[in-house]
Amino acid sequence: MYDIDAIRRDFPILSREVNGKPLVYLDNGASAQKPQVVIDAISTAYSHEYANVHRGLHYLSNLATDKYEAVRGKVAAFINAASEDEIVFNSGTTEAINMVAYSWAMPRMEAGDEIILSVMEHHANIVPWHFLRERQGVVIKWVDVDATGALDPQAVIDAITPRTKLIAITHMSNVLGTVVDVKSITAAAHAKGVAVLVDGSQAAVHMPVDVQDIGCDFYCLTGHKLYGPSGSGAIYVKSDRMKEMRPFIGGGDMIREVSKDAVIYNDAPMKFEAGTPGIVQTIGLGVALDYMTGVGLQNISAHETALRDYAIEKLAGLNWIQVQGTTPDKGAIFSFTMDGAAHAHDISTILDKKGVAVRAGQHCCGPLMNHLELTATCRASFGMYNTTGEIDTLIDALELAHDLFA
Amino acid sequence: MYDIDAIRRDFPILSREVNGKPLVYLDNGASAQKPQVVIDAISTAYSHEYANVHRGLHYLSNLATDKYEAVRGKVAAFINAASEDEIVFNSGTTEAINMVAYSWAMPRMEAGDEIILSVMEHHANIVPWHFLRERQGVVIKWVDVDATGALDPQAVIDAITPRTKLIAITHMSNVLGTVVDVKSITAAAHAKGVAVLVDGSQAAVHMPVDVQDIGCDFYCLTGHKLYGPSGSGAIYVKSDRMKEMRPFIGGGDMIREVSKDAVIYNDAPMKFEAGTPGIVQTIGLGVALDYMTGVGLQNISAHETALRDYAIEKLAGLNWIQVQGTTPDKGAIFSFTMDGAAHAHDISTILDKKGVAVRAGQHCCGPLMNHLELTATCRASFGMYNTTGEIDTLIDALELAHDLFA
Repeated sequence: MYDIDAIRRDFPILSREVNGKPLVYLDNGASAQKPQVVIDAISTAYSHEYANVHRGLHYLSNLATDKYEAVRGKVAAFINAASEDEIVFNSGTTEAINMVAYSWAMPRMEAGDEIILSVMEHHANIVPWHFLRERQGVVIKWVDVDATGALDPQAVIDAITPRTKLIAITHMSNVLGTVVDVKSITAAAHAKGVAVLVDGSQAAVHMPVDVQDIGCDFYCLTGHKLYGPSGSGAIYVKSDRMKEMRPFIGGGDMIREVSKDAVIYNDAPMKFEAGTPGIVQTIGLGVALDYMTGVGLQNISAHETALRDYAIEKLAGLNWIQVQGTTPDKGAIFSFTMDGAAHAHDISTILDKKGVAVRAGQHCCGPLMNHLELTATCRASFGMYNTTGEIDTLIDALELAHDLFA
Repeated sequence: MYDIDAIRRDFPILSREVNGKPLVYLDNGASAQKPQVVIDAISTAYSHEYANVHRGLHYLSNLATDKYEAVRGKVAAFINAASEDEIVFNSGTTEAINMVAYSWAMPRMEAGDEIILSVMEHHANIVPWHFLRERQGVVIKWVDVDATGALDPQAVIDAITPRTKLIAITHMSNVLGTVVDVKSITAAAHAKGVAVLVDGSQAAVHMPVDVQDIGCDFYCLTGHKLYGPSGSGAIYVKSDRMKEMRPFIGGGDMIREVSKDAVIYNDAPMKFEAGTPGIVQTIGLGVALDYMTGVGLQNISAHETALRDYAIEKLAGLNWIQVQGTTPDKGAIFSFTMDGAAHAHDISTILDKKGVAVRAGQHCCGPLMNHLELTATCRASFGMYNTTGEIDTLIDALELAHDLFA
């Protein structure tokens, strides 16, 4: 039994009002709210258990180190990594993908080598590859989605050439909700010696993830979308790929020895974690993952699937709304536009007056917006604490916006 | 009047015990504790005011954006930058120096070009430059300190050659407490067209800093040492240097437009802040800086100077202790070794039994340890909340350690 009322009580912000109305938070695709246990863990860490990690021998330093390092195993379990040594902590998926670009791709890719992206990638999974294009002549090859927002795995596989070194692809589109068959893509890519990076920023929030089953080389998680603190995150790097990576960020902790003339680097994963890390954020991320697994990842997924189906039905009743992304197994993420002159920004402003928080704009997906021939959409994205009643409120607010702008 | 009791009450962790003894936290060089106002600001942000920043139009997003962006001006004021547009947020000094290495130095330095470092730099200000040495043949030139730990500014200036592109130097040694005359070095460097990066990780905690007076090109701050959250920080980049920098981390927010074929980057400082930033950490950093300026940077500095003088006097009474770093204007940071067989790690373990938290090891300063011909030291580093009574406790604990190991 999914006790939605109990879950909602766990998130203090959900009881606040916005513009005199109860908050209806449908901007989870941008960032999720935090349960009280995460907020409490942060307060406890700073109030009673704080010190820098790894380098100390005193009580608080050991305590903080134990709490911090325990999260590595939690992350590994959350995505079923074979070993916690395959988990690198970071500040989120943007840093993660840049690490792969700088550490793995840049030293091994030459002018004319190819990276395959889908047209629905987030800028975090585009701009680092543009760096390789701009700086060393790497070629980015794009694979389009169809009219429903589906990505044919075979189209990705067919784009592989002898020059392809990497496929970097989202597991779930942050705009369309499309779930990508990253397992089939990975199997075919590996058969041709091509590595696969999966951007799990959205997917890991909404469905159970098994990186060993997928088989991918890199899998990125964003902590603040997983009900964890801002500035938290991790990337799974398969151990064989980890061995191929040179360091990205240099500083303390990632070294074994530094002299005037030389550096001996630390073993992975420490080799890729320089300086004082996001200690308390990472501890908070561990608590957030515990909270999610306590509720149950399958249960969360089932709840969100029900929300998705309810939203599909309700939005279908508004024949002046166009939803972008209509694949049958999509996540509970709805981008939409409205007939008439209403700009997405205006719609979101009206919704906000009714307490409904949605996002409006390009959603960090310039190429997808060009593909859809849109300049902006509104996006309502759901989380584990949303309700069908909130969808009703969204629909009412949309009708008001339509009345105002039609 | 510096009300030390009131200040101590502001830091909840200081009232806890460790190993049955009151905590005496002397590991501030590694990381500082947090006042309740910072902890409360974090809780409030997550409990009532949280959303992603910059990209939203709804109430919470605007609120979080306003709170986050207000910190830029606070940081600028804290170090007297000419404009808040010269402040780039990051996760701390390690990321900051890597940004300068990747964004500014790598594209403009060729094999044989030179970077000048002092021998007392922290690994965060060494390893990024070793990357340039390893990857593109840049030469690192080292300037030694004298027997007191002093760095002669003229020795740094004399090391400049026509191949020198950058001087990267600490403002205050995290091991010796040495304060470097970065103003004189900068003036002479600029006269020869050489840029100057100052690592202010320690200095900005212990004394007022004026980047316009120093005149340096880059100045790094570490939030978690400034009584702010872990994973917070900022770098000052003089606007002329900012224009010379290419992007470092790619992703959302740092772009104006992304298409399949091209990227148009955002204006600085946004160009150097990719993806969802450390929203709540940065808000917390702002509160920490407000707290420090509320107490008064001159007052904090005067308090710590008194602590330093008291510690010098007390340590001088232990003729079996050798203090590394004896310059007269040093910060309240004491590295020391003990006669006899006692390893720094053993000493710190004994101190810990008495509730005294110090650090033992290389303190991320391999080249300095080699220069001092030491493998490790203990380090007691003071903060705004420490007392002369705590120094007495340290001295008592050292005497116990000496009795045990002598």
